[in-house]
Amino acid sequence: MNQSPKRICDVAGYQAAGVVAGIKSSGKKDLALIYSELPAKGAAVFTTNLVKAAPVLVSQEHIGGGTFRAVVMSSGNANAATGEEGVETVREMCKIAAAELKCLPREVLIAQTGLIGVTLDREAALSGVKKAAAALSSTGSNDAAEAIMTTDTKPKHAAFTFEAGGREVTLAGIAKGAAMLSPSMATMLALVVSDVAVAKEVMDHALRAAMEDSFHVMVVDGSRSTNDTVFLLANGEAKNPLIDSIKHPDYRNFEIALTETCKALAMQMAADAEGATKFFKMRVVGARNKAAAQRAARSVVSSVLVKCSLAGENAYWGRVISELGASGVDFDPNEVEIKYGDFTVCKNGMAFAHDEDPVRRYMSGREIIVTAKIGDGQGDGEAYGCDLTHAYLDENMAKS
Amino acid sequence: MNQSPKRICDVAGYQAAGVVAGIKSSGKKDLALIYSELPAKGAAVFTTNLVKAAPVLVSQEHIGGGTFRAVVMSSGNANAATGEEGVETVREMCKIAAAELKCLPREVLIAQTGLIGVTLDREAALSGVKKAAAALSSTGSNDAAEAIMTTDTKPKHAAFTFEAGGREVTLAGIAKGAAMLSPSMATMLALVVSDVAVAKEVMDHALRAAMEDSFHVMVVDGSRSTNDTVFLLANGEAKNPLIDSIKHPDYRNFEIALTETCKALAMQMAADAEGATKFFKMRVVGARNKAAAQRAARSVVSSVLVKCSLAGENAYWGRVISELGASGVDFDPNEVEIKYGDFTVCKNGMAFAHDEDPVRRYMSGREIIVTAKIGDGQGDGEAYGCDLTHAYLDENMAKS
Repeated sequence: MNQSPKRICDVAGYQAAGVVAGIKSSGKKDLALIYSELPAKGAAVFTTNLVKAAPVLVSQEHIGGGTFRAVVMSSGNANAATGEEGVETVREMCKIAAAELKCLPREVLIAQTGLIGVTLDREAALSGVKKAAAALSSTGSNDAAEAIMTTDTKPKHAAFTFEAGGREVTLAGIAKGAAMLSPSMATMLALVVSDVAVAKEVMDHALRAAMEDSFHVMVVDGSRSTNDTVFLLANGEAKNPLIDSIKHPDYRNFEIALTETCKALAMQMAADAEGATKFFKMRVVGARNKAAAQRAARSVVSSVLVKCSLAGENAYWGRVISELGASGVDFDPNEVEIKYGDFTVCKNGMAFAHDEDPVRRYMSGREIIVTAKIGDGQGDGEAYGCDLTHAYLDENMAKS
Repeated sequence: MNQSPKRICDVAGYQAAGVVAGIKSSGKKDLALIYSELPAKGAAVFTTNLVKAAPVLVSQEHIGGGTFRAVVMSSGNANAATGEEGVETVREMCKIAAAELKCLPREVLIAQTGLIGVTLDREAALSGVKKAAAALSSTGSNDAAEAIMTTDTKPKHAAFTFEAGGREVTLAGIAKGAAMLSPSMATMLALVVSDVAVAKEVMDHALRAAMEDSFHVMVVDGSRSTNDTVFLLANGEAKNPLIDSIKHPDYRNFEIALTETCKALAMQMAADAEGATKFFKMRVVGARNKAAAQRAARSVVSSVLVKCSLAGENAYWGRVISELGASGVDFDPNEVEIKYGDFTVCKNGMAFAHDEDPVRRYMSGREIIVTAKIGDGQGDGEAYGCDLTHAYLDENMAKS
């Protein structure tokens, strides 16, 4: 298992493009197309929000069967709460992509992000798909990653490789997400492409497992969006022995590589969240099991008050222990120990005398890691978040 | 049922005081004592946070049996995560109150609010109790309400009266709460005193019922604190026929009066929340039942993004429909209608053309009421919140 500098087009059989379709009023890139030269198997995870955007409704229809050749991802308009007209626009976009790429419309997956409740300019969207199809290349990875950005300040890439049956397998992904980010699907789009040879059911299983340790433990503001989508494509070009079951000897490495790819994207999202000046990793150790540890950690990174403390560079552990207690996870409050970085500030559930200067210096850093030991169990887990700053408010007070 | 200008000491048999004990470094009033001249029955609701403050632990022991003579409420230090020493301080406070008031320590209830994880100055707390006992009077209602304030800008009072068996019964309450406010107990302290004659089990039942429509549907920042406490005392001085069962003809009016008193206090909390410039009432109508409507409404008032929109005076209903969809309540997204004040901005789950000027004017007001019709059910419910402003961040970035 190795982290890799590869990008999506460096995976055998994939091309990409990112173009200006005119959906964003800023004139920035706003439509990405990722093309699989071969029919690829696909898996997806969608928002659990009852109000689902048009691209989610259509992709849910498409994901059921067969293979896939393209993924369209656009930004600037969520195409959510846009009625039948919004759905029709998405179907047209898939049709145009299919015509350009000589495949079936149902072999096209689609995800969109941006403002909710605003009609998507159909002409811009359709001509954008055409333009992107013409621009496909093996050097389009970054253009695609840029075209899905909204308030993100940086494109997000991640890749991992592993060996399976003597073959090197690669997974590479792109993602966006800067607000409306919460467990159980953030406002985020992510795509991971791979050359792995893997059975469809195994992909589904691995993708769900990867979610638990990546996007589902990343919280920016606790809002679950109408558009959250993660796609995984696998074209078999690595020619590894087919991973046909979760008991296959190579399955574990595949799941880990997928999880690490998603986790790297999730951490980039948290670090680049709207207005964020600090990346926040909350670790909970000694819980009954991993799920309990993750739940407790998520509760802390979700806390508006903890996020304010971080922005104020303030190691106010009282808010951390309070959120742990409110998380629904069982532990003995008198056993809790809390560290900011390596500095213990709370022991036996009470203040622990410490030198304040080094803690203050630590809190001024760009990355804050808080560790809470809540018992003697074997369950360790973590969650990712960020601070809450005036810039977040400005961004979200102004925007409509 | 009538709203009343009465305050806690206007209820027959109660006296109060609010003094400077020296717990707050600001030198403001920080300790309230409420005295019942007669043995009063008591009911209480406490935080569901696993990490419970020392006053919660002690009051939970006391509430079990018998009658009560006094409630001590202090601010500036939560006395949470303070170990055995914190609990000992609370026991001493109850002992001193009992000695001064000639009752038993277990007839004293106690609630505290303020910073978590900081040792409470025992000497200040004990001398404060003595001082307050000496200051008890029938004009101390407002001093008591002021002494429990932390970042609140206003003392909070509410009272209702109703007739039972030809007698006028009064309920009057005080409360504090400005942050760490969330359903299922906010960071808040509240006390309601009454002269009603009522059985203990009936009081318990009514208090729990009142919570559902008041404090539990009020959200400021989603944090459940270590100290949340609501007390209800009833001394029988109204000499109404004893309300001995929830089937008693006067029970319904008692429950409504208690609910309205708590609701009035909850709305004052939301309006006076840290940094808040707008009170926000979210109404959901047409849900399957009231619980579903309240759950959906709570989800909207809890949303950081919706709160930012309010601060920006922005009627961005896309965030409202998204939070409704994420609430876990079932409805048809294509049937949703959303109004800001009287202005419909969304119909059939889509944007509804409207004149923007009056909506903009409405959004500039101090009180915003949003109504979402999510179906044709009989369930209506509401929740109370506020906007999220730079002042909230300043308050919570600085504080430690």
